[in-house]
Amino acid sequence: MRERKVYLKLTPIEEALAKILAFPSPLTAESVPLVEAHGRVLAEAAVAELSSPAFAGAAMDGAAVKAESTYGASTARPKTLKVGSEAFWVNTGEAIPEGTDAVVMVENLQVGPETVTIEEAVFPWRNVRKIGEDLVATEVVLPRGTTIGPYEIGALAAAGVLRPKVFRAPKVVFLPTGSEMAHLGSIAPSDLKAGRKLPEFNSLIVKSLVERLGGHLTVWPIVPDDREKLAQALTAAVEGPFDLAIVCAGSSAGGRDYTAETLERLGELLVHGIKAMPGKPTTLGRVGGKPVLGLPGYPVSATVAFELLGQPLLRHWQGQSQPQRPKAEARLFQDLPSRPGLEEFVRVKLGRVGENLVAVPLPRGAGTVSSLARADGLIRIPASVEGLSAERPVQVELIRALEDVEGSVMAIGSHDNALAIIDGLLREKDPRLSLTSAHVGSLGGLLALAKGAAHLAGCHLLGSGGVYNQEAILKYLPNVPVRAVRLVEREQGLMVQKGNPLGIESLADLTKPGTTMVNRQRGSGTRALLDFELDRLGLDPSDLRGYQDEECTHLNVAAAVAGGRADVGLGVLAAARALGLDFIPIGWEDYDLVVLARFMEDQRIKALLETIRGPRFKERALALGGYGVSRAGEVVFSVG
Amino acid sequence: MRERKVYLKLTPIEEALAKILAFPSPLTAESVPLVEAHGRVLAEAAVAELSSPAFAGAAMDGAAVKAESTYGASTARPKTLKVGSEAFWVNTGEAIPEGTDAVVMVENLQVGPETVTIEEAVFPWRNVRKIGEDLVATEVVLPRGTTIGPYEIGALAAAGVLRPKVFRAPKVVFLPTGSEMAHLGSIAPSDLKAGRKLPEFNSLIVKSLVERLGGHLTVWPIVPDDREKLAQALTAAVEGPFDLAIVCAGSSAGGRDYTAETLERLGELLVHGIKAMPGKPTTLGRVGGKPVLGLPGYPVSATVAFELLGQPLLRHWQGQSQPQRPKAEARLFQDLPSRPGLEEFVRVKLGRVGENLVAVPLPRGAGTVSSLARADGLIRIPASVEGLSAERPVQVELIRALEDVEGSVMAIGSHDNALAIIDGLLREKDPRLSLTSAHVGSLGGLLALAKGAAHLAGCHLLGSGGVYNQEAILKYLPNVPVRAVRLVEREQGLMVQKGNPLGIESLADLTKPGTTMVNRQRGSGTRALLDFELDRLGLDPSDLRGYQDEECTHLNVAAAVAGGRADVGLGVLAAARALGLDFIPIGWEDYDLVVLARFMEDQRIKALLETIRGPRFKERALALGGYGVSRAGEVVFSVG
Repeated sequence: MRERKVYLKLTPIEEALAKILAFPSPLTAESVPLVEAHGRVLAEAAVAELSSPAFAGAAMDGAAVKAESTYGASTARPKTLKVGSEAFWVNTGEAIPEGTDAVVMVENLQVGPETVTIEEAVFPWRNVRKIGEDLVATEVVLPRGTTIGPYEIGALAAAGVLRPKVFRAPKVVFLPTGSEMAHLGSIAPSDLKAGRKLPEFNSLIVKSLVERLGGHLTVWPIVPDDREKLAQALTAAVEGPFDLAIVCAGSSAGGRDYTAETLERLGELLVHGIKAMPGKPTTLGRVGGKPVLGLPGYPVSATVAFELLGQPLLRHWQGQSQPQRPKAEARLFQDLPSRPGLEEFVRVKLGRVGENLVAVPLPRGAGTVSSLARADGLIRIPASVEGLSAERPVQVELIRALEDVEGSVMAIGSHDNALAIIDGLLREKDPRLSLTSAHVGSLGGLLALAKGAAHLAGCHLLGSGGVYNQEAILKYLPNVPVRAVRLVEREQGLMVQKGNPLGIESLADLTKPGTTMVNRQRGSGTRALLDFELDRLGLDPSDLRGYQDEECTHLNVAAAVAGGRADVGLGVLAAARALGLDFIPIGWEDYDLVVLARFMEDQRIKALLETIRGPRFKERALALGGYGVSRAGEVVFSVG
Repeated sequence: MRERKVYLKLTPIEEALAKILAFPSPLTAESVPLVEAHGRVLAEAAVAELSSPAFAGAAMDGAAVKAESTYGASTARPKTLKVGSEAFWVNTGEAIPEGTDAVVMVENLQVGPETVTIEEAVFPWRNVRKIGEDLVATEVVLPRGTTIGPYEIGALAAAGVLRPKVFRAPKVVFLPTGSEMAHLGSIAPSDLKAGRKLPEFNSLIVKSLVERLGGHLTVWPIVPDDREKLAQALTAAVEGPFDLAIVCAGSSAGGRDYTAETLERLGELLVHGIKAMPGKPTTLGRVGGKPVLGLPGYPVSATVAFELLGQPLLRHWQGQSQPQRPKAEARLFQDLPSRPGLEEFVRVKLGRVGENLVAVPLPRGAGTVSSLARADGLIRIPASVEGLSAERPVQVELIRALEDVEGSVMAIGSHDNALAIIDGLLREKDPRLSLTSAHVGSLGGLLALAKGAAHLAGCHLLGSGGVYNQEAILKYLPNVPVRAVRLVEREQGLMVQKGNPLGIESLADLTKPGTTMVNRQRGSGTRALLDFELDRLGLDPSDLRGYQDEECTHLNVAAAVAGGRADVGLGVLAAARALGLDFIPIGWEDYDLVVLARFMEDQRIKALLETIRGPRFKERALALGGYGVSRAGEVVFSVG
């Protein structure tokens, strides 16, 4: 009989946060040399030990004098002072000699061998930096909770605080669990590909997050799926010199949900599941008086859960509030569904398209680690709603500064590997430029253009007359001024496993018994090409095994074939080559960038057109194989 | 004869930037283990070495089956499969066994001793994470120029990029110059106070900034003011394994302007002074083919100059654009003058007062290091204008996120040490809360309230009837609803040097020959008190030596006396005690917080009132000495 745990009651995020923040801070204060204080947090307000400046000093290069001795000086009646007794050379920053109270700038002096002559009186304290002008001894320089960065080092140094009192660095212990897990880099590639071993790298992500907060993370050996071993490890961990213990994975609602059970057994289970997606299978408990945070195994879930509960705790313990990301209003170009009852966190790419900031959701799976690194922003969908509408503006928390996404060309449409080349070349040309692409197929791209959600759409839709794109543009973008710019001609073909074990030679072979294909999604140009060709050959899609199994990119189709899920799929040569597949050519097609005409003079689009017309783009595209680039950058069709 | 250099031609910032960015990147690429890659920058696009996931795995806990074997299953006609041959238990993340292509969730199974029973068919690939769902091998994971942080570590790990190619870390050498400089911490306090030695800490600030950019900074011994020694040091530095040499100080327009001269002698002087304030005395040259950046000696100038030229260079060399700070529109509450011809950088505190984001400039001196650490934002005043008007909104570059300044109570007015206590207690209560105070005197505070530039003003203005504040409120805030909340009663008195060497006993003694006073600025309550008392005693201000010498806070008056600039000044006991001065009491006064009535229900103001009514505020204020707190928090006067 299979065991199973259910989440008895999911805890709202705010409530879980209150529970973890209730753990009192174990962080005592310690004094550290200023040169080692970078990144540490002040445990008490830093009070100036010295005034800054600590003495009256020259604010200009010149002669220090007693102001009284200049009174009455004028061009007609200059005053001459003896250097060494009445006037003293000083450089900026130097102390002015006792008895002097002003500095006459060197520009305003006539200099004799042993004298200076002054033609204008100066007031006392003119050009003198007074004691305490910046900081007076005993004054609060920086409040408690300040993270010590470059500016703070300067202020503390000026105030003579050479050993600031900072919080002892929080110490976190990380217990990875799971019998099938192994430390990253220790796994043979064959075991990795067969899924016999899974790489453990959540500890690396969390370590980096903890270090950013001024803490230290110790990673323990991987604990196998065994109740006793987990209990032993956790007991040892909370007895160790750690402030917070993290148990990772083993907290899904499946058979291996030992974390919650172990927390109950060794101490107290405070939270068993939170109303967050990703991040739901998060647990929190108390063992030996210390907080134990159970993170889900999927990297995105683990990261979100740590950021929701672990990060606030470490900041709170160091007297800091939770950082708020700046927000901006953006437009979704299609509705964003969500599960009511859970607060959903959706990462998005952002781009400025005309007046609109457009948000394109990244894949939401808890395993899509790349979405963490690629995101420009984050949308939170409250637990109380069932999704967000494309009609209304949405609030986006900015992960990258808005100014950093202003240089993105927003491309929505068909996927092609050449888009990655364009992105790379744009960034090399000017690091502010980039290409953001969302892959929704050729038709989806044209519909996005109709809504003004993108600058351009990659498109390869075969028309009934055998001409690409023109028919589709006229049909789906009626009265919208656009320019179709040729990017490449591409060779499409059947991708099959190395050596072509099933001996597939043409589209007709897809109907062979025992042959499983993988398809592209509806609306994609490749799907349209397949359907066009099947129709021409008189083949019935229902005779094709796997016709319903859809992928969204050439590379994903290639991956399905390479991984053995399918025997054959239609796609471009570059994708087949990338994954070492054999390729049976079917024919060439035109792949154009359909650009909204009003953006043709946009600086970003101009840079993009310049890039694809240049030799480096052509070289790199040709190197991928299966591309024709002779017309790259040419406007092949205009409307309006 | 005194030597002198003049800036022949100041270079516009953009032009200086173009000159430094023209130095080609010396940074080669190197592979580093992922675990050590934190903070490094990708030298080329990272390409997935593995697909992620690398195998078809269970997305749910349950039984892996061949989907076909479930076809036709229903509640009426369930299908029973044998565990071990037709169905296989799998946990989330595990590879599904060869021959299976779907997972039935454990919730949807009836579990027998050696079988599972299924009541609903599943489609192929249901609950299965397909190969390459997140990343397909050969796909670009992250572009060149990406800084590797927590998320990037996750994405690279998932993609099997265990040794990313990063730029070799830039190496910077820092040459402090100046015969009077000594490394921080190596100076005897007596030398520091006498100005015989100046602490060198610009290297610490720049080191911290360089490390943030992924670079290393080596600090060399201090070079004395000697042409030959500087030339020798610089020659050795550029011959060393460094990419950029920084010479600090010695670049003012004074007698020690050896940097520009040395650059000309050893190589080429490219920039001699930039159109920036602070930061003007910045130089740039080329020696031995390498860039040499000459930073001004004042810490704020040095920091600004490094951020304008050094930081962009290190980022540019690593394929990164210049980070843009987010911007916001704010209101100045008084005009902000500037020098035309120079782009001025003014650091400001920010606060949200009603609808307005209010910007209060921090002191602008190049030596006011504290302004770097205290700033919430930065205003750039273009070289082409003569200042900014309080009438029009200004653009502020945000140093702290707007969300982090939303919790600030904005206080403009009289200075009192108790304000620092309130700030500390507010932060302890809730790290989002704080008190931002600008010290413009009591009258300035009331005028700021009239403009709606602050929530409250500290005020102690003696009225003709001997009652504090009421007369002034009625006069300067006619028809403005306000509440005067008592903060403290304060003892004012004469602060004199320890032991009272001049035997000062009362205000009348200020007229004694040989006695120099230091005054508070016009509009301050303390100045008003002095003038009131002088008038009462029939004393003529023109008989008081130093009456024109003004300071803006009690502590600065105390510092002037402690430093010997003056013999006596009027101020509060707490300030005298703080700097170890003797104190001759003159009398008690009322110090109130005048709050705009419309903010009395603002959460921040409520927290502040709660704080000053609490025991901790009273304890800490009493500990400073010279304070009465029995009425702290009481509304003593209401208008409207």
